[in-house]
Amino acid sequence: MTEPTPAQERLHQLWAEIRDLDSALATLEWDQETFLPEGGSAARGRVLATLTGIRHQRLTSPALADAVARVEAEAPPGSLAADQARVARRDLERATRVPEELARALALAKSQGVAAWRRAREASDVRLFERELAHLVELKRQEAAALADGGAPYDALLDEFDPGSTEAALVPLFAGLRRDLVPLLDRVRGSAVTVDEDPARGSFPVEPQRRFGAAAARAIGFRFDAGRLDLSTHPFCTGIARTDVRMTWRYQEDDFRPGLFGILHESGHGLYEQGLPPELDHTPLGRDAGSAVHESQSRLWENHVGRSRGFWRWALPRFRAAFPGTPADLDRLWPTLHVVRPSFIRVEADEVTYGLHIAIRFEIERALFAGRLGAVDLRDAWNQLYRELLGLEPARDAEGVLQDIHWSLGLFGYFPTYALGSMAAAQLFATAHRDLGDPEELFARGDFAPLLHWLRERVHAHGARWTRDELLARATGAPLSPDALLAHLREQVEAVYGGR
Amino acid sequence: MTEPTPAQERLHQLWAEIRDLDSALATLEWDQETFLPEGGSAARGRVLATLTGIRHQRLTSPALADAVARVEAEAPPGSLAADQARVARRDLERATRVPEELARALALAKSQGVAAWRRAREASDVRLFERELAHLVELKRQEAAALADGGAPYDALLDEFDPGSTEAALVPLFAGLRRDLVPLLDRVRGSAVTVDEDPARGSFPVEPQRRFGAAAARAIGFRFDAGRLDLSTHPFCTGIARTDVRMTWRYQEDDFRPGLFGILHESGHGLYEQGLPPELDHTPLGRDAGSAVHESQSRLWENHVGRSRGFWRWALPRFRAAFPGTPADLDRLWPTLHVVRPSFIRVEADEVTYGLHIAIRFEIERALFAGRLGAVDLRDAWNQLYRELLGLEPARDAEGVLQDIHWSLGLFGYFPTYALGSMAAAQLFATAHRDLGDPEELFARGDFAPLLHWLRERVHAHGARWTRDELLARATGAPLSPDALLAHLREQVEAVYGGR
Repeated sequence: MTEPTPAQERLHQLWAEIRDLDSALATLEWDQETFLPEGGSAARGRVLATLTGIRHQRLTSPALADAVARVEAEAPPGSLAADQARVARRDLERATRVPEELARALALAKSQGVAAWRRAREASDVRLFERELAHLVELKRQEAAALADGGAPYDALLDEFDPGSTEAALVPLFAGLRRDLVPLLDRVRGSAVTVDEDPARGSFPVEPQRRFGAAAARAIGFRFDAGRLDLSTHPFCTGIARTDVRMTWRYQEDDFRPGLFGILHESGHGLYEQGLPPELDHTPLGRDAGSAVHESQSRLWENHVGRSRGFWRWALPRFRAAFPGTPADLDRLWPTLHVVRPSFIRVEADEVTYGLHIAIRFEIERALFAGRLGAVDLRDAWNQLYRELLGLEPARDAEGVLQDIHWSLGLFGYFPTYALGSMAAAQLFATAHRDLGDPEELFARGDFAPLLHWLRERVHAHGARWTRDELLARATGAPLSPDALLAHLREQVEAVYGGR
Repeated sequence: MTEPTPAQERLHQLWAEIRDLDSALATLEWDQETFLPEGGSAARGRVLATLTGIRHQRLTSPALADAVARVEAEAPPGSLAADQARVARRDLERATRVPEELARALALAKSQGVAAWRRAREASDVRLFERELAHLVELKRQEAAALADGGAPYDALLDEFDPGSTEAALVPLFAGLRRDLVPLLDRVRGSAVTVDEDPARGSFPVEPQRRFGAAAARAIGFRFDAGRLDLSTHPFCTGIARTDVRMTWRYQEDDFRPGLFGILHESGHGLYEQGLPPELDHTPLGRDAGSAVHESQSRLWENHVGRSRGFWRWALPRFRAAFPGTPADLDRLWPTLHVVRPSFIRVEADEVTYGLHIAIRFEIERALFAGRLGAVDLRDAWNQLYRELLGLEPARDAEGVLQDIHWSLGLFGYFPTYALGSMAAAQLFATAHRDLGDPEELFARGDFAPLLHWLRERVHAHGARWTRDELLARATGAPLSPDALLAHLREQVEAVYGGR
């Protein structure tokens, strides 16, 4: 690498402080979800709002604008420095469009929102969350309008999580997904096969579940000297620093699958965060390439590795040791990892119906930000869409509209990235398969390093340099498409539920 | 309360942001001691340094100086507003004397210091901490010189933790303590009594210890909906907010005393933090009155409550239930809580020798900041003083100079407050005893509320409004004196080791 110029140094110095504030915020938010005493949430809300305000001031400061402009002026197009400036410019312009007061109000509303969501979820009554949700939606509408700057408000939200994403590009994608997934679901419904789920059920005490899950995370490459695993209501992973990556999980005592696949999912996120390039630490490019790419990493390790036969050839002896008395053998266990059945809870959904869960949330968010739906209409809209797409209606809000934490944190525009991530995961895994040979043999030996190395080189090492489609084109030869995902799902449905 | 003036509102608004930064820093530091992955410490150091720098900028901003000056100009002397301005002025002037670069460098050095201390302590070799310690001492000397502004550097450090405290006032106090404690220790040495410590020893698994300790904390009034208890290498308590007070503990499996009395000690700190007046939240006065007063609360609950017969009349059935098979009865157990024996570890020292542990640290700090001692001479000085005052020499640094976390965090000038706190605790408790009647009968019924209420009114409710001596004069009728402590210790030594 060449020596940084004075302008680049100045940019990196200013940016490092913004990243330090991000790191502080990530720690405080992680703590809010894991260890914060109930009484502390109002005070935490204040602190998050204050730090968010300070971050906003830094991001919109004349000093930063000047440093970015200088680097833009001197860096050759396509150079790393030019890309640093481009990404900094994007964040800076987004921040400049949102008044600091609104940014602070949003931080406070999120903190109040998540506390109200938690209470409402416990009582399984969305009405206990209505006031906070309506306030959040109102503030997010203001933010989206400010960010869109005359354009489409919902696009401005999508763009935050998946740079360049637009509603117009997503609508046909989701329509296509729905069109292909529904017949696949019908094929399952028409099959004579009923998977015996007993091998996945029984008594799985939390501590052995945690140990087995952590051992799996460690085996695929997650470093616990640079990360943690804790319990929380809603599983998540946050990169406080490349060397401090924290994931959370939850579990059921009577079924090991939600716990284990939750951990493998978050481990995929964690491997990405731990694999970001050290030389880009604290710089604009020293982060992930957006949530769709992030989600491709979690879905890849969860579904393409964790649900594979090869993985279970390695895992089964360990599974039996963790849960003595488990009768599981590979041929009986494997189908239980691929049961397709419409269900209420997104994070526990099978791979086929998962996309429909996302399609529902996408529909609701579109309507919310087009003004066709109000915060108070959310439960009705939710239940109606679940009837339509999955043929079920949640009897309780806790397994319906209150199941996800996202909206309570103001995360509107995030859900679509889950479906995009599933598509990207399949596309990346298919390419890795071609490049590495059959990975199942490696997995069976517990050798996950070649796949991780491949992902490090193709995805992790580039930080935020490329957009989702640029990155996929470089890694797989083509921009994002649902083809690999649909091929993968068809193959699995056939294996479990029989041929066409 | 009267309506705040515009100047007061401005001051409170600016101060609230400083308190929010304090709260963020406290959370990040708590996390550093409890859950931070090993690899995350360098990144954490950066974040702490950045937030410390931002806090320093806020504290030295012209806007704050202007707001303080306006309140000073308009508030009648002795009014609450005038006291708010006075305390703000003190912090602001201290901050203004320390260049921001130095404040940041110190934050970073502390973070590196604590990581090095932890490694050195594990290896029991102070040399692994020498470089970081020397750097810290150098920076603290610069800070002390800047703060002292021509006065005595060590006084400037003492004043940070115990406003108004000076070396000149402490020297005779510690000389007196040494003069009275040494004969008391000799009396124990000359006694024919040997306390049978078996009732305190045995097998005490961590989980029952935690439950029993937490139940005791809850019984004396610590609110777990506004606080936590976690494990750490060095026990501490931090008030992230009045509604988010976190204490930590450590334990021995073969002796319940270090764990339980550690928890009671930190609970005393915690009760103070939880008892600060809500109406002063986020204001300059909305915090404790310094470390000596803070320590009076921890020592009071640890020693005057937790080691009392009354407390154990309440606690013993619970103790037996937590540790089945424990043969303890009150008459056999009580003396084990009052064993006097010179030992290596300060936090586990008995009440008589505790003051000598502090006297040693005070001597070393004085010498360090007078330039009579260098960071590399610390182990020798430490071991020599332990020989002199306690008649023992640590064989391992981990039970010698590396036992305390304080210096690694740059906390020089803090140790003396422990001895002052013990004196204040005895003085407060003697007065409470007069006011409430024999508290032992209340304790025996598990009724700790009257004592807590008394402390709330006399100590907690005033926040940072009075200095240690002002507060004691109001609460007990006299400024700080060692008399009550010495009377308390003599009484206990007589009860356990026989008459004069």
